Amino acid sequence: MEVAYTKIEVRYAETDQMGVVHHSNYVVWCELGRTHFIEQLGFKYHQLEKEGVLSPVTNIDLTYKVPAVYGETVQIATWVESYDGVRVIYGYEIKNAKDEICVTGNSTHVCVNKETFRPLAIRKHLPAWHAAYEKAKK
Amino acid sequence: MEVAYTKIEVRYAETDQMGVVHHSNYVVWCELGRTHFIEQLGFKYHQLEKEGVLSPVTNIDLTYKVPAVYGETVQIATWVESYDGVRVIYGYEIKNAKDEICVTGNSTHVCVNKETFRPLAIRKHLPAWHAAYEKAKK
Amino acid sequence: MEVAYTKIEVRYAETDQMGVVHHSNYVVWCELGRTHFIEQLGFKYHQLEKEGVLSPVTNIDLTYKVPAVYGETVQIATWVESYDGVRVIYGYEIKNAKDEICVTGNSTHVCVNKETFRPLAIRKHLPAWHAAYEKAKK
Amino acid sequence: MEVAYTKIEVRYAETDQMGVVHHSNYVVWCELGRTHFIEQLGFKYHQLEKEGVLSPVTNIDLTYKVPAVYGETVQIATWVESYDGVRVIYGYEIKNAKDEICVTGNSTHVCVNKETFRPLAIRKHLPAWHAAYEKAKK
Repeated sequence: MEVAYTKIEVRYAETDQMGVVHHSNYVVWCELGRTHFIEQLGFKYHQLEKEGVLSPVTNIDLTYKVPAVYGETVQIATWVESYDGVRVIYGYEIKNAKDEICVTGNSTHVCVNKETFRPLAIRKHLPAWHAAYEKAKK
Repeated sequence: MEVAYTKIEVRYAETDQMGVVHHSNYVVWCELGRTHFIEQLGFKYHQLEKEGVLSPVTNIDLTYKVPAVYGETVQIATWVESYDGVRVIYGYEIKNAKDEICVTGNSTHVCVNKETFRPLAIRKHLPAWHAAYEKAKK
Repeated sequence: MEVAYTKIEVRYAETDQMGVVHHSNYVVWCELGRTHFIEQLGFKYHQLEKEGVLSPVTNIDLTYKVPAVYGETVQIATWVESYDGVRVIYGYEIKNAKDEICVTGNSTHVCVNKETFRPLAIRKHLPAWHAAYEKAKK
Repeated sequence: MEVAYTKIEVRYAETDQMGVVHHSNYVVWCELGRTHFIEQLGFKYHQLEKEGVLSPVTNIDLTYKVPAVYGETVQIATWVESYDGVRVIYGYEIKNAKDEICVTGNSTHVCVNKETFRPLAIRKHLPAWHAAYEKAKK
């Protein structure tokens, strides 16, 4: 199974008055993980958008265990948890510098036409991506 | 069942290059919904923190349907989906100006000691909140 | 002189581990102030964008005095500090609940074509806005 | 003169519906630049906070030239523009992948006691930082 690993240095602006990273920022970190996973597959998400295709999130489900803190670098592992030709579910695991699991979770994505927001089957409209997802999910 | 309704004007900074609200911002909006729900119960979250108790998120699960856009005001409904004396699960429904459902979901919270991050049973340590949650969930 | 007043409830996510609002958020609040100022003049910024015109920031200069905190509502005053037919400089003053000045500052804006990012003289291309700015700055 | 160079990969969440990076994010990038500059001097900002000292921003002044976009990595140069024993002014220059200047500017900082927010003279209370700033500004 293909896994992309991304190092993320915690930003001061990402903390809140609890003294830890605010939970909304992990959502952004997962997006960074996806960007890198897609690059590892040989694609560029911004290139896809130029070709008129967006890939919005339809669900996000994150479980928080140990909070990340400013002054450390975390690592996010990103992989394809499931793929059916239309929807792709990415899995995530974020670990801190002590190798403790901060967050686990997944996000679900579809592809849509940039102008109409109408769904596009990846299998049909993006055959190269389809092949890559099929291979990556194993 | 107690429900709090909060109007939120979409901020330009909350949009992304898809031309719609970036999905991480709904997480922040849910937090605003919780703040108002708690006020409606007669409490202040910032007062709780002053008394040495934090209420971190342990899970967030959001499903995205119709994207919110800049120029509109959305409404978030917040309620208690379940409560067992220790964990509270808030439910959310965000609707746009056309009354379409943008996002539904829930988030799970516990209470912890501010200094140690050790869990505190709400039932035992915060009896007034316990009574209010018990009443609100009906 | 025309001034728009906007109430902003501090969001938990806007705090950082100093226990106060992170300084980057005031930049977003100024944008909210501008949105309301423009509405008070009788226009909608999102409508302007639909007509193919963007109004990017070319400078922002903020001075921080007293930090805003979670649990309070601040008020931002927004006005036109100067306008020459091409560039508009908005002035801002953000006060907390105790009427203390948190932040003062200004931001400079031009108008550009949405597709090319080429500058557009407001005086020439947006005569109604030009008239409103001329009147508002007095 | 000491200069720290930091590479920053543009995040999708940092874009707005203009299709470019929202101007508030450069404020956060400058903070990343400062974190690295301080590390290059041999210090850690989070260590300073543990010792009871905060370094809030008292002014930020940024000029925007060319917008950064998703899909590219920018570089921020950070240095000490002036230092008088009490206040430090950091200078910034952010360039995109084509070596175009996106943003230039500076931010002013003082040090304060973490509990009281009362000012602390760096010269007196942080002699090692004082020596490093004196050396870095040349």
